[in-house]
Amino acid sequence: MLTNVDLAQMEKNNPFAAMKRSELAAQLAMLQRQCIHMNIPALIIIEGWESAGKGYAINDLVRELDTRAFQVHVFERDGEEEEKRSFTWRFWTRIPAKGDFAIFDRSSYYDMMNDLDLNKGEIKKSIARIHDAEKMLYDDGTVILKFFLNITQKTQQERIGELFEDDNRKFLVTKNDTDQNKHYTKYEKHFSNILNLSNFDFAPWHLLSAEDRKAASKYILGTSIRLIQEGVDRHLSKQKTAKTFIRAYNRETTCLQDLKTDLFLEEEAYLKKSKALQQEAQELAYALYTNRVPTILVFEGMDAAGKGGAIKRLTKSMDPRGYTVNPTSAPSDAAKDHHYLWRFYNNFPKCGVMSIFDRSWYGRVLVERVEGFATPAEWERAYGEINAMEQELADFGALILKFFLYIDKDEQYKRFMARQADKPYKLTDEDWRNRDKWDAYVLASNEMIDRTSTAAAPWILVEGNDKPYARIKVLGEFNQRARAILQLAADKS
Amino acid sequence: MLTNVDLAQMEKNNPFAAMKRSELAAQLAMLQRQCIHMNIPALIIIEGWESAGKGYAINDLVRELDTRAFQVHVFERDGEEEEKRSFTWRFWTRIPAKGDFAIFDRSSYYDMMNDLDLNKGEIKKSIARIHDAEKMLYDDGTVILKFFLNITQKTQQERIGELFEDDNRKFLVTKNDTDQNKHYTKYEKHFSNILNLSNFDFAPWHLLSAEDRKAASKYILGTSIRLIQEGVDRHLSKQKTAKTFIRAYNRETTCLQDLKTDLFLEEEAYLKKSKALQQEAQELAYALYTNRVPTILVFEGMDAAGKGGAIKRLTKSMDPRGYTVNPTSAPSDAAKDHHYLWRFYNNFPKCGVMSIFDRSWYGRVLVERVEGFATPAEWERAYGEINAMEQELADFGALILKFFLYIDKDEQYKRFMARQADKPYKLTDEDWRNRDKWDAYVLASNEMIDRTSTAAAPWILVEGNDKPYARIKVLGEFNQRARAILQLAADKS
Repeated sequence: MLTNVDLAQMEKNNPFAAMKRSELAAQLAMLQRQCIHMNIPALIIIEGWESAGKGYAINDLVRELDTRAFQVHVFERDGEEEEKRSFTWRFWTRIPAKGDFAIFDRSSYYDMMNDLDLNKGEIKKSIARIHDAEKMLYDDGTVILKFFLNITQKTQQERIGELFEDDNRKFLVTKNDTDQNKHYTKYEKHFSNILNLSNFDFAPWHLLSAEDRKAASKYILGTSIRLIQEGVDRHLSKQKTAKTFIRAYNRETTCLQDLKTDLFLEEEAYLKKSKALQQEAQELAYALYTNRVPTILVFEGMDAAGKGGAIKRLTKSMDPRGYTVNPTSAPSDAAKDHHYLWRFYNNFPKCGVMSIFDRSWYGRVLVERVEGFATPAEWERAYGEINAMEQELADFGALILKFFLYIDKDEQYKRFMARQADKPYKLTDEDWRNRDKWDAYVLASNEMIDRTSTAAAPWILVEGNDKPYARIKVLGEFNQRARAILQLAADKS
Repeated sequence: MLTNVDLAQMEKNNPFAAMKRSELAAQLAMLQRQCIHMNIPALIIIEGWESAGKGYAINDLVRELDTRAFQVHVFERDGEEEEKRSFTWRFWTRIPAKGDFAIFDRSSYYDMMNDLDLNKGEIKKSIARIHDAEKMLYDDGTVILKFFLNITQKTQQERIGELFEDDNRKFLVTKNDTDQNKHYTKYEKHFSNILNLSNFDFAPWHLLSAEDRKAASKYILGTSIRLIQEGVDRHLSKQKTAKTFIRAYNRETTCLQDLKTDLFLEEEAYLKKSKALQQEAQELAYALYTNRVPTILVFEGMDAAGKGGAIKRLTKSMDPRGYTVNPTSAPSDAAKDHHYLWRFYNNFPKCGVMSIFDRSWYGRVLVERVEGFATPAEWERAYGEINAMEQELADFGALILKFFLYIDKDEQYKRFMARQADKPYKLTDEDWRNRDKWDAYVLASNEMIDRTSTAAAPWILVEGNDKPYARIKVLGEFNQRARAILQLAADKS
């Protein structure tokens, strides 16, 4: 994409060359107001050669924007924090809220671009991750703009020299700058390759000449206005044409209904087993810590199926400094203003830590589906999105286990009545309303299990009618799978 | 506090020795439910010798708690992130929300306790900071419990030995452990000193023997139950007795009304000056970055006084990657669930970065006071709290400037009418309602300026009737004070 381009020709073709930067900036600010009103988020990625003038362009982009609705995020080489996180974590935690513009100085491409030693497979894998993340945002209504600022080797050398002579700006010159300039041709080929591979239909690259900073800035401003306007129009036309949704999925499973409902464990056996298993779980949690394995445990299930109790027994002997339990209730305003996966990224574990989710991102295909909070197109898309997310976490080395606790309808009734007598505050009208939709929840749960049980992140179905039995099963499964991943790690090293 | 204590005697006096841990844990869980209902936060700090069994005690504390309403936070030696933050930042960002229990494994005492080389003055200063932070939470209704686990040198040595022989737990033995054991007597004296100095009335230390882990755990559980119950009772009696509030402050200033209202700048002069000043502001912002100075700029003022415009002109030439603008609107649910300063800690700048606040924590003594969202006791307390917070940030090396933009009532009317015609979306009913309370806002603003303008964080009053004049004044003041702090840094090095 970069090789054999004619920068002079590019500059000639700049349709915004005759306009004033201040006018373009004001136009963008008008458009921003419209985006705020319509709740449209925009993500503007500014990539390019070192010293190509990214900061200059970003300054022009934001100069007239409403400061309350944009953020600039700088991506640099991974720091201490990022190294403990999966590849797209930094991207996800910085995505724009509805109505906001997020401007990324570099992006998830950063590490890849600065590493000439990556092989083809590694590059493809990283780009697949980026593809998934950008696609998810695009599908969620985010306008994505990607610019690459191109300069010649000579210009880059001059600019590095200028910066270096300015005491206040000297710090802007890094090893990346000098490296790129020294091995310009190699980098040119490397960048070209990355840009070609990540030139997605829904988020193509806009290549521009940055030989003249002002002209480059105008191009970015003008193109942003044009493309964000298109995004706004797309949004409007979408609102007008109510889409008919055709479900692609035609398989109906009954895996939950097929579970045995009469499994149980006597108290004595339970006490004996649980003590030993909890002891082992404690040891395994320490071992996961020392081996720097991040662990993600998801608990889903019918209301009153015993998720809380199972979590409590699983963690009973574990060092409480090594895990967190994240209850998932109705989303906060901030969560509602972002892609539905965003809030979970904020709670994913660092290396060595365990995050337990009492309900989770699967709400998208359960409660949000059943109650109509998500459109069919949205929850249909979610299966693939969730699988992609979990795959990335697994590739990063995470142990991911998802427990589904099932009880039958009679057992739920018994538990509700017992709760009513015993802990009335734990039983709400909503619980009864959900019960009325029992069949819809079972249908959605079955489909979820069928479509998101992967080798990387399997669903473990737990027969929940007898609490002792369920708790022992959860403990046993956790221990077994933790042992397996630790064995794998030991074999590798 | 530690020297000459008789651990055996302490154990004998443990009033909870005969009780079962599981029963105590269940009682604490019952009390937790009450705290959730009553929105009472509790902070439990577990300090002590290394290997004294803090993890063991914390496990017992949380074993029956509702996982949705407690968090365990581990404080270790400052990492990369903490080094870029002021002393109590880590504490503030982890305080419990209303109804939650936060359990701190160590706390802000950590670094101090592990540093035998600190002189008296340094220790006193750190403890003053901790005092202020704990006091603010206590005054806000948080129940604060502080435990120190005491063991003998011999016991510590044995435990370190045991840990070291266990492959899964070996990582728990750090240099701190071995150091403490080697220089036990020195540390004992050092700890005693710190405990004595931080044994505040509202948050005293509870010293206990941890020679027997189970007995220690019982003591912590039992004492927590007793003290949290006292906190609940205090809360109930507070609700019953409506307090009469007597204002201590008797000084009425008219510093805002005394400002000149006819200062102005011709357009030509404005354009010339602003360009030069913006250029200088850009250079200074780079210099603040390279000198690792964190910068906090606060903008307050009457409605329509031109805060947004002034911020835009100030930052016009600055590198947008070096600053963030934080708009402060009505608090989110999460913010409402915490101490009012909490949400700002999340936006304070790291070293070298600039955070600009468009309205700020001063809302406590402005809108919250005038509208009655805060009680007189709450906003009266806030002046001192805010001064203490800003002092800490200044001691950390921050440049803190607070701009108050004042316009007179006639000018506001003109601007409201112009807005009505021009940008009606920027004018709300609330603006008109606030205008009706003009005098109350001016009174509150005057008092705020009088009581919170400190050498560490001065208020800069800006005559705002003429926008060009105000913008130039903000730019000029920023430049002058940035130059001064940089000069100071240069003189020091």
